[in-house]
Amino acid sequence: MTVTGRALTEEEVGRRIEEMRRRPRRFRDERITMAHGAGGKASRALIEGLVVPLLDNPALDHNTLSALGDAATLTVHGARLAFTTDAFVVSPLTFPGGSIGDLAVNGTVNDLAVSGARPLALSLAMILEEGLSAEVLEQQVRAVADAAAAAGVPVATGDTKVVERGKCDGMYLTTAGLGLTRPDASLAPDRVRPGDKVLVSGTIGDHGVAIMLARGNLDLEAEVRSDTRSLWPVVEALLDTCGPAVRCLRDATRGGVATVLNEIAVAAEVGVVVAESRLPVRPEVTGACEILGIDPLYVANEGKLVAFVAPDAADAALEAMRRAPGGEDAALIGEVREEPPGRVLGKTAFGGHRIIDVLVGDPLPRIC
Amino acid sequence: MTVTGRALTEEEVGRRIEEMRRRPRRFRDERITMAHGAGGKASRALIEGLVVPLLDNPALDHNTLSALGDAATLTVHGARLAFTTDAFVVSPLTFPGGSIGDLAVNGTVNDLAVSGARPLALSLAMILEEGLSAEVLEQQVRAVADAAAAAGVPVATGDTKVVERGKCDGMYLTTAGLGLTRPDASLAPDRVRPGDKVLVSGTIGDHGVAIMLARGNLDLEAEVRSDTRSLWPVVEALLDTCGPAVRCLRDATRGGVATVLNEIAVAAEVGVVVAESRLPVRPEVTGACEILGIDPLYVANEGKLVAFVAPDAADAALEAMRRAPGGEDAALIGEVREEPPGRVLGKTAFGGHRIIDVLVGDPLPRIC
Repeated sequence: MTVTGRALTEEEVGRRIEEMRRRPRRFRDERITMAHGAGGKASRALIEGLVVPLLDNPALDHNTLSALGDAATLTVHGARLAFTTDAFVVSPLTFPGGSIGDLAVNGTVNDLAVSGARPLALSLAMILEEGLSAEVLEQQVRAVADAAAAAGVPVATGDTKVVERGKCDGMYLTTAGLGLTRPDASLAPDRVRPGDKVLVSGTIGDHGVAIMLARGNLDLEAEVRSDTRSLWPVVEALLDTCGPAVRCLRDATRGGVATVLNEIAVAAEVGVVVAESRLPVRPEVTGACEILGIDPLYVANEGKLVAFVAPDAADAALEAMRRAPGGEDAALIGEVREEPPGRVLGKTAFGGHRIIDVLVGDPLPRIC
Repeated sequence: MTVTGRALTEEEVGRRIEEMRRRPRRFRDERITMAHGAGGKASRALIEGLVVPLLDNPALDHNTLSALGDAATLTVHGARLAFTTDAFVVSPLTFPGGSIGDLAVNGTVNDLAVSGARPLALSLAMILEEGLSAEVLEQQVRAVADAAAAAGVPVATGDTKVVERGKCDGMYLTTAGLGLTRPDASLAPDRVRPGDKVLVSGTIGDHGVAIMLARGNLDLEAEVRSDTRSLWPVVEALLDTCGPAVRCLRDATRGGVATVLNEIAVAAEVGVVVAESRLPVRPEVTGACEILGIDPLYVANEGKLVAFVAPDAADAALEAMRRAPGGEDAALIGEVREEPPGRVLGKTAFGGHRIIDVLVGDPLPRIC
């Protein structure tokens, strides 16, 4: 038992809580659960507590095993290369606005894009279930081809495996991507400063709600389409216009915008304040979220990024995004502050504040 | 009805058969079967008949969607980069001599190696089944880490997805690899010439037989260990010693050495003659294959390559391989001839010849 001579001040308690939040998670679970794949606290515990301690390697410029959602960088012959991978297990395989083939291309392209890297080449590994209809396979290979063409990146290499009936769910696709980082891109959470503005490239929650509706277990008529698309045009416009004033970019996939904001707040040791009334959300997404009792801030996107931009460049950044294909509904949603470090606060319509925490459970498995 | 004025000569018939063999396969199946993942004729039909027509892209230096088993190359800032991917669905997850984690590293490293590319970085995407024991996961992540360290390549980026119980078989791993091609490496099937010698880097069939035995449905006592390992040391020794006299390298995974020889024979339009008595095969592998009625030439390897080398350099190549770790049992097994183009012949111990054709069925699904 520890005895202290005096009670802790409120400030000291706050500091200790923040220290604990920043500490790498330990992995104590005996079995893998769906939550470990959801991109929230359990995913972080698995990655930080089990994967990173075994695989971390100081030889790389920037190793992203620990940084969910963006790309590793390595320098070869003076070229700064970005390298990333994503597995796709979405159910159902097709949904309004897209399919697993679209996600497999755009998800990996976007991890490169938010690293400031122009996509150069993709790989495609397919795990197919015995009995899968050739028509479905062809449809998805075509979706990959079309999405790759739209993103201007070739699928350069591939692999195909088949597993017995019941050992897969139709098909799983894994892509890896290789990109060339722009020389003027210097994007990292630790470049984020108090005063920076926070922007999103468009409406949030579309992909997650589209999947929920496509699963058909909601009694809703709304037609919501996934936002799956390449973010490279938006990134290119941002960098062309604002250069190094763009501090950090993240695509807001699993765990939604709230998870991205929390990751940056913790990594940069800053506070982030979001004006909730400024969040662009389609009315049908708001409606579906209200019925489900979930917050669009936590719903996955597949074609939206969050940008942290120096205050002077914020207006130009917003204009640049809005002119770029895929950024038409971009919005300035908040700003970075010194306090409270590691925390995201939502400013409600009534002038109050609420804490926007990291996702804990798994509201929607197999979203991508 | 076509009426021809005369019967075809034997030579004409032969030519027409060869033309048909070389023609890209059409994909006519309605459903995916295990054979489509086995690396033989059905796999080729799927890739050439469905995947390549949709995804082929002329923008790349060397696109390998159509060339099973090696890497795409792309030039960035003067650096020749090799890029490849493989999905691993092996069952069981561990077996004598290795595990899915070892295969996931070495399989991709070897696709780079046989392209003459030093591995620079790997990605690792894991699809995990809900309920997987954390101990098994940790064991496999450790296997990945150890194999990557042994191969001298960092795991730079990763992703984790979880699917429901019964939608996977424990875990599937997909790696992609990025490599830097040696300037002196010019490895391609169309560099193979009549007169070239054919070498293998060691005993064949070890991996496939190890998996068969590990599945426990054979009443055999033999202890056969998988040969999973990085082939880069063997490739480096070959290139250091023989440079461009090394014409073409292939790792002999799914479909075994026979499949590799057939692919090269067809691509280079040459005949390949193999002296069957020279094939290095462990006695316990021979024994298991005899009981099963299969030919070790068709059994998968995970740490063996086939080298086509200019005749003058063959002795030096053999010595170089034997001195390199993993090449101790290297052997010269045959040579390239003009006739019969596109065909592989086995010279039997009794002086006769037999045709060694491409694998048709799937002798052993989920070997890697």
